[in-house]
Amino acid sequence: MGTPESIAGKSFQVANEAFYHAFSNADAAAMGNLWAQGFPVFCCHPGWPPILTRAEIVASWKEIFSHGARLDISFVAQQTALIGAVGVVCGVEMVGNSQFACTNIFVVEAERWRMVHHHAGPLAPGTIAAIATPVDPGHGRRH
Amino acid sequence: MGTPESIAGKSFQVANEAFYHAFSNADAAAMGNLWAQGFPVFCCHPGWPPILTRAEIVASWKEIFSHGARLDISFVAQQTALIGAVGVVCGVEMVGNSQFACTNIFVVEAERWRMVHHHAGPLAPGTIAAIATPVDPGHGRRH
Repeated sequence: MGTPESIAGKSFQVANEAFYHAFSNADAAAMGNLWAQGFPVFCCHPGWPPILTRAEIVASWKEIFSHGARLDISFVAQQTALIGAVGVVCGVEMVGNSQFACTNIFVVEAERWRMVHHHAGPLAPGTIAAIATPVDPGHGRRH
Repeated sequence: MGTPESIAGKSFQVANEAFYHAFSNADAAAMGNLWAQGFPVFCCHPGWPPILTRAEIVASWKEIFSHGARLDISFVAQQTALIGAVGVVCGVEMVGNSQFACTNIFVVEAERWRMVHHHAGPLAPGTIAAIATPVDPGHGRRH
């Protein structure tokens, strides 16, 4: 396990962007590289039961990507937080006309931010229109 | 921020149980006490956009609890992990006849495990029947 202090600032957001880049490009190799090797990992695709092993998670993305080429995906990060050694991003994904509440979690492994968790759950159609201006993704709010 | 090392083992699982106890008893006060005060917090109820402030999260639970008395809720923890200062529980919630993939995240604050994140997304009906035997909740698997 690396020391997150050695990694600049909140650069887990860069890993979050890499996740959506791999997702939208249906790039199974890049997606596989993003997931941590030495930590427990979790993935909850919309409507699927939780997937709990790295091999099954990587296979699930291959299955999702097997249906076609580039996907129409965008992501609005609404909240980010660096809590100890863990980076969390919460926001809304838009995949085509569908919207999903999404949580992504990252840890530092071998001096790189890697994914340990992705959870996307469906929103009612049109929910995004009701969402306020995103929080500055560089600054998690504290209460 | 407390030091998680000072808190016995994986006792965030006790906080997770307290969460479902408060949830099933529709106990808004207990639910409110569970949420961290000094960390960024996130809550994704099924079908709702992410809620990003503690006050709004506490209010959302009050709204959910306002419709009646005790709720028929059970939870199967499938994976738990202590990653640095952060405890993560992933599993399946059953609320009446509905099933949800669920992620709960805890941190140590004032020497107590407190919640910073809850995310529940709906599963297809009957999904739970396809779920394998739960992982021993005391031991997150590593790959």
